[in-house]
Amino acid sequence: MPIMSAQPGMASVKPADSARPPAGLTLPRLLPTTDAGLGAALAQRLALPTQPTQALGRLQTLLLQLVRIQSTKPPAFDRLALDAPQLLVFAADHGIADAGVSAFTQADSLQRVLHLLRGQAAVNALAALHGFDLTLVDAGLAAQLSRPHDALAQVSLLSRKIGHGSRNMLLSPAMSPQQAVAALHAGMDVVRHLPGQVLALGSIGVGGSSCAALLLSRLCGVPLADASNDCTDAPAAHALAAEVQRKHKLKQLLKVARRHYHAVTAFDALAAMGGFEIAMMAGAMLQAGAERRVVLVDGFVAGAAALVAHGLCPAVCDYLVFAQRSVAPGHRLLLLHLQARPLLDLELHLGQGEGALLAWPLLQAAQRLLAQQTPAG
Amino acid sequence: MPIMSAQPGMASVKPADSARPPAGLTLPRLLPTTDAGLGAALAQRLALPTQPTQALGRLQTLLLQLVRIQSTKPPAFDRLALDAPQLLVFAADHGIADAGVSAFTQADSLQRVLHLLRGQAAVNALAALHGFDLTLVDAGLAAQLSRPHDALAQVSLLSRKIGHGSRNMLLSPAMSPQQAVAALHAGMDVVRHLPGQVLALGSIGVGGSSCAALLLSRLCGVPLADASNDCTDAPAAHALAAEVQRKHKLKQLLKVARRHYHAVTAFDALAAMGGFEIAMMAGAMLQAGAERRVVLVDGFVAGAAALVAHGLCPAVCDYLVFAQRSVAPGHRLLLLHLQARPLLDLELHLGQGEGALLAWPLLQAAQRLLAQQTPAG
Repeated sequence: MPIMSAQPGMASVKPADSARPPAGLTLPRLLPTTDAGLGAALAQRLALPTQPTQALGRLQTLLLQLVRIQSTKPPAFDRLALDAPQLLVFAADHGIADAGVSAFTQADSLQRVLHLLRGQAAVNALAALHGFDLTLVDAGLAAQLSRPHDALAQVSLLSRKIGHGSRNMLLSPAMSPQQAVAALHAGMDVVRHLPGQVLALGSIGVGGSSCAALLLSRLCGVPLADASNDCTDAPAAHALAAEVQRKHKLKQLLKVARRHYHAVTAFDALAAMGGFEIAMMAGAMLQAGAERRVVLVDGFVAGAAALVAHGLCPAVCDYLVFAQRSVAPGHRLLLLHLQARPLLDLELHLGQGEGALLAWPLLQAAQRLLAQQTPAG
Repeated sequence: MPIMSAQPGMASVKPADSARPPAGLTLPRLLPTTDAGLGAALAQRLALPTQPTQALGRLQTLLLQLVRIQSTKPPAFDRLALDAPQLLVFAADHGIADAGVSAFTQADSLQRVLHLLRGQAAVNALAALHGFDLTLVDAGLAAQLSRPHDALAQVSLLSRKIGHGSRNMLLSPAMSPQQAVAALHAGMDVVRHLPGQVLALGSIGVGGSSCAALLLSRLCGVPLADASNDCTDAPAAHALAAEVQRKHKLKQLLKVARRHYHAVTAFDALAAMGGFEIAMMAGAMLQAGAERRVVLVDGFVAGAAALVAHGLCPAVCDYLVFAQRSVAPGHRLLLLHLQARPLLDLELHLGQGEGALLAWPLLQAAQRLLAQQTPAG
């Protein structure tokens, strides 16, 4: 095992769960953060003589994770740094959207992207509020995307287009193995060029939650009916229409799962039933973990990317902070399978990173509380 | 009913649930915020063409509450103002602490207060992070409190001492009706002299959670064994010791409840089994509501004050934003009885306002999101 030698982020390890590693895939070296002494030392540091133990509750748990991620030897508690936080929003289209699995169409993905580039999306307001740099990555929108003339200067646009939307999974794998590798590498590459110790991840793409449901079902053994039971984004005017829509979606997803029954490893499932944005988010998580950054994961689709990243390298979860539990029932199951307890439970029906930005002040608070308890000098 | 006339906050109404209104108690005029059209108008304002409805989830619910509190006619959505937020921490001692209901003693209350005045408490760090003015109110500490020479300039200290700790409820009512009235009035008075549209409330006082459990049990019919089942703050080294402590606490509280069986209205229960800080917080809530301020309620003890305020004037709940659910099981039951769903669930074991400050960025985020969706001009 070469895992204990060399610098993190430099060497490569083979994918963890794949009997036949995908040709050409180079994963960054990612070390688990476990450190048995750190929890006790932190508890001692945070203990106050006239307060109950564990007074900070889950904030202390969060703090322990952050300290572990950034820990040096000996652990230097006063050095917790959360500077220059970055929000990456990966946008891609999904051929499966043609099968009517969503109330929206692929054209809506583009509209959402333009909305964000123009500073009109919820994430724009929240990123400005909390001082996040916001970068939109075109991972594979169906449309040709160029920066609109009225785009907000604060929003960066990166084109890492792998294809003009993934293929319709009913007819073929969503992407070729080569595309999946390219998308994973692109995600790593994007992170490699970003500053900061904190990375928040969100996504845009009609059909993304179908991919998330399929990946959750395949990688965790959750019945597809439970994984995809998310009201299909219908504008909810008619409960009956929503129910018809839900059944139609489930029928299509069952067909997809049957067609790609052989795709059981994380990589194969990603290629067969994933999306470009999911692959890139998984790559981004792996790279961020290798660089010992904190990763704030938002929403169901980003959660599916975490599943894939976990399949490729289980230690990545040490670096993931799950920001919120969205309204999608599949998201709840996904978090249970990752044994993750999200910081917020606000029933959001968005996944562009809003939840990550909403949870961010809790990280700041944890940082402040630690700094306060750190002896001066 | 004179409720619809005159300015809010000027006239007085009689306590809602008391057959014999306590002599001398003057409650501020408090109007419910209900406005049927506002929810639909807000949903329309927040709806985006390419996003699911209710995409903001509970943030939209929060926003509706904030807009209702500050609504004018016609509703002016762009005027949501959350300026100069204030944190009030009310400190008081409880004679019942002598009966060993807590692992801490009354002297520890003073230590916590001094800790806060010196800027060493968790709330200090969080108040600084989020720009809250912090005021400590001595509602009735057992000790004589004077500002220590090394106190932080940013922390204001108000002395509104009603007594040197409340009396031991095992032997007599915690306070006389006159003291309860004085404490309620003092809470109103403190708020009347504060600026800002947002008021966060927390408390300090060993024995406060015993009062909270008793009030919850009496005013909501929750069995005392459930209401007080909160691990008794023991430093948790020994599970057995904690269990012995828990049983002892319950036994004492059952005696208290039996002794004061006649105290069934909110006011009578407050006087018999409450505390000075609880009375003042209830008064503060009523006054803040009358002035249409947003009230951020933290912790189990502040929750008990909300119960009392609700008993005196049910409309006050329209103005209360419950920030967090603490680790105390009684707190969970209390929130259920108030039909309140807190913003955070971080298992804190503190009640000085930390939870309110941690939840505050969600209010800011809601404000930003609303401003973004408000047509310019």
